[in-house]
Amino acid sequence: MDIAINLERLRKDLEELGQIGQDPRGGVSRPSFSQADLEARAWFKEKLREASLEVREDGAGNIFGRLKGLETETVILVGSHLDTVINGGLFDGTCGVLSGLECLRVIKERGLIPRYSLEVVAFTDEEGNIIGDFLGSRAFTGTLNEEILRKGLTNFGRPLEEILKGTGLSRESILAAKNEAPKVLAYLELHIEQGEILDLEEIPIGLVTRIAGKRLYQASFQGQRSHAGTTPMELRHDAFLGLADFALRATRFVASKYEEGRLTIGRVQLHPGTFSTIPGQADFTLDLRGPEENELKEMEKKIMEMAQEIASARGLAFYCRLIDATEPKPMSPRLLTILEEEAQHLNYPYLKLTSGAGHDAQILANLTDVAMIFIPSINGLSHCPEEAIRWDDLEKGANLLLRVLLRLASL
Amino acid sequence: MDIAINLERLRKDLEELGQIGQDPRGGVSRPSFSQADLEARAWFKEKLREASLEVREDGAGNIFGRLKGLETETVILVGSHLDTVINGGLFDGTCGVLSGLECLRVIKERGLIPRYSLEVVAFTDEEGNIIGDFLGSRAFTGTLNEEILRKGLTNFGRPLEEILKGTGLSRESILAAKNEAPKVLAYLELHIEQGEILDLEEIPIGLVTRIAGKRLYQASFQGQRSHAGTTPMELRHDAFLGLADFALRATRFVASKYEEGRLTIGRVQLHPGTFSTIPGQADFTLDLRGPEENELKEMEKKIMEMAQEIASARGLAFYCRLIDATEPKPMSPRLLTILEEEAQHLNYPYLKLTSGAGHDAQILANLTDVAMIFIPSINGLSHCPEEAIRWDDLEKGANLLLRVLLRLASL
Repeated sequence: MDIAINLERLRKDLEELGQIGQDPRGGVSRPSFSQADLEARAWFKEKLREASLEVREDGAGNIFGRLKGLETETVILVGSHLDTVINGGLFDGTCGVLSGLECLRVIKERGLIPRYSLEVVAFTDEEGNIIGDFLGSRAFTGTLNEEILRKGLTNFGRPLEEILKGTGLSRESILAAKNEAPKVLAYLELHIEQGEILDLEEIPIGLVTRIAGKRLYQASFQGQRSHAGTTPMELRHDAFLGLADFALRATRFVASKYEEGRLTIGRVQLHPGTFSTIPGQADFTLDLRGPEENELKEMEKKIMEMAQEIASARGLAFYCRLIDATEPKPMSPRLLTILEEEAQHLNYPYLKLTSGAGHDAQILANLTDVAMIFIPSINGLSHCPEEAIRWDDLEKGANLLLRVLLRLASL
Repeated sequence: MDIAINLERLRKDLEELGQIGQDPRGGVSRPSFSQADLEARAWFKEKLREASLEVREDGAGNIFGRLKGLETETVILVGSHLDTVINGGLFDGTCGVLSGLECLRVIKERGLIPRYSLEVVAFTDEEGNIIGDFLGSRAFTGTLNEEILRKGLTNFGRPLEEILKGTGLSRESILAAKNEAPKVLAYLELHIEQGEILDLEEIPIGLVTRIAGKRLYQASFQGQRSHAGTTPMELRHDAFLGLADFALRATRFVASKYEEGRLTIGRVQLHPGTFSTIPGQADFTLDLRGPEENELKEMEKKIMEMAQEIASARGLAFYCRLIDATEPKPMSPRLLTILEEEAQHLNYPYLKLTSGAGHDAQILANLTDVAMIFIPSINGLSHCPEEAIRWDDLEKGANLLLRVLLRLASL
């Protein structure tokens, strides 16, 4: 079938959406349920209505636009997320949602009636501004439990009730969202790579084979605070030096042992945090990732042992608390084969790769077959105002998505 | 002359003052011009009046209580400070001010008229909560300049004008305080050691030979922020790892080369400071100290070179800004001899030592002869709620102070 997406229309959508939540300090700041996000949600629903799709929002705030098939309640799902990090870019998440919308518009315009319903989805809070990542897709798949919801860090330190005020949603409606889910045959997500492999290799399409798992810890070295002027260097129990030692050794360990392993310390707070007091406590975040479950677990265990060893060698104590965990997930081999066949048919060069970043797709993998299409991030930049794509890469990615959707929907 | 201080009265004063600014999170929080400090100032002035001393406050908020001598406008000054760090102890600064008050009360009660006026002083903001350390003593000695006052960090991030509101003081009055200073023949300060030498050696009196100098820097390593999941370990320019490397190497260098050198990183802030972003910027404070001017300068130079080397080896940039500097100061050999003679006369064991901590005395050394008496800090604890002294050590320190004051005032 000779069918293609309309790049100009898709580009206009992306640019229009990119105006919502423009941050004077740079880029776009549109965390879930912020004023900007509420505006983006209203804009997206309006776009779905314009395309004559059936609009639905579940108890977790996930927004769906359905093109009805013959088997109405069985769906092929396509999408991503509309929320962004603070000072993020225009393309993370939005490319997937709006490409999905564009595919459904094209199919609708052709007057095609698929066997299964096709549904574009924008999942809530993929970026984890509320309670760790993937609130929306976890609620949809029933993999969110009340404990996570209760314990979860809200990144802005605000109570969940306050964040949800005025949205019509609640803790209870979020937990009940799974009951509203239709039967899902497959989930497809197009996303920017957020790394530089495709850009360096000059390949427009990445086909994801697996998504790395992640462990987020809030951790702390504890020593003895004392006076910076009177405490000789050799008598100190400086909590920050424990952290510095750990950061260097753990980084070296991961870099040398695990080719696709990642370790990041993104936030540090020393106590009491003054010029002239040796820190008695060094709090920090620890982000560990790996694409293989056993390898990730082994890495996690060794890193924790290393922290304990460093603490005891320096007369410190080490504490940590697991904040969030996602397991590595392989993508569906069946869908990957279809993606390869269609990419070959379209004559698009492609590369199979692992995703180091987490995506709603890995949550959906608990429910159904999933597949992801990556398009290049220019210079690999991500989660920053400089995030960028090439429009012809997006066109290729969206056309591939369209062909796979058509095939899955038996058109 | 058989004369001695009244320990019970001094202890009662210290305990009464210690009630002002009690912090529910522990210890005493009485930064200059906080509500608690204003209350402590009022309390102290009332104590001066009760002792029939002439009360005066200068344009920098320094509070003086004078026992008039025959040469009224020539004074022997004794004192320290009433302000504390956040969650500080009961004895830092207060021991010196209230011992000075107790000495003047005893002299007054005996009806003695000294040749020179004796003045007890409480200097403003020794702890540097407003613009680095020693605002009051610097203003008094005319070693504070407008530039420092303008550039200075206010530790709570509030504008100076707001901090001074309701105190009757201003930027101008602070700068003019030096014009109100009388002729000062000597300055004596009793203080807790804030280290553990005297306590370990079980010696009640420390006679300070010199006070270490200090450099406070606000510094930063800058790299490239990127995504914690997608950026391979070997492609990162992680600003925090630059800081960790620097912290360990610089600490090792100072510990191995400079017996009395000190290096402390007390505060760290990573940007953007989220779980899953590799920090593009690591801001930190750097506190360098040493008792010898040339040695301190050499250490400072080597440390800065090391930071630059680490930055360039890791593809980072290093920036720093000098926030505050005090030079090492020797105490007056003349006064030190008098102190030794009087300690011997009283049969008090003493030890001569260097002060690693800064004190108003080093600022007064720009104006007059200075000397310091240390009493032991139990377990060396300082700037924390657990700060403690033994009352008989304080009694010995205050009696030594009394005898030296009498001798200097030609009684």
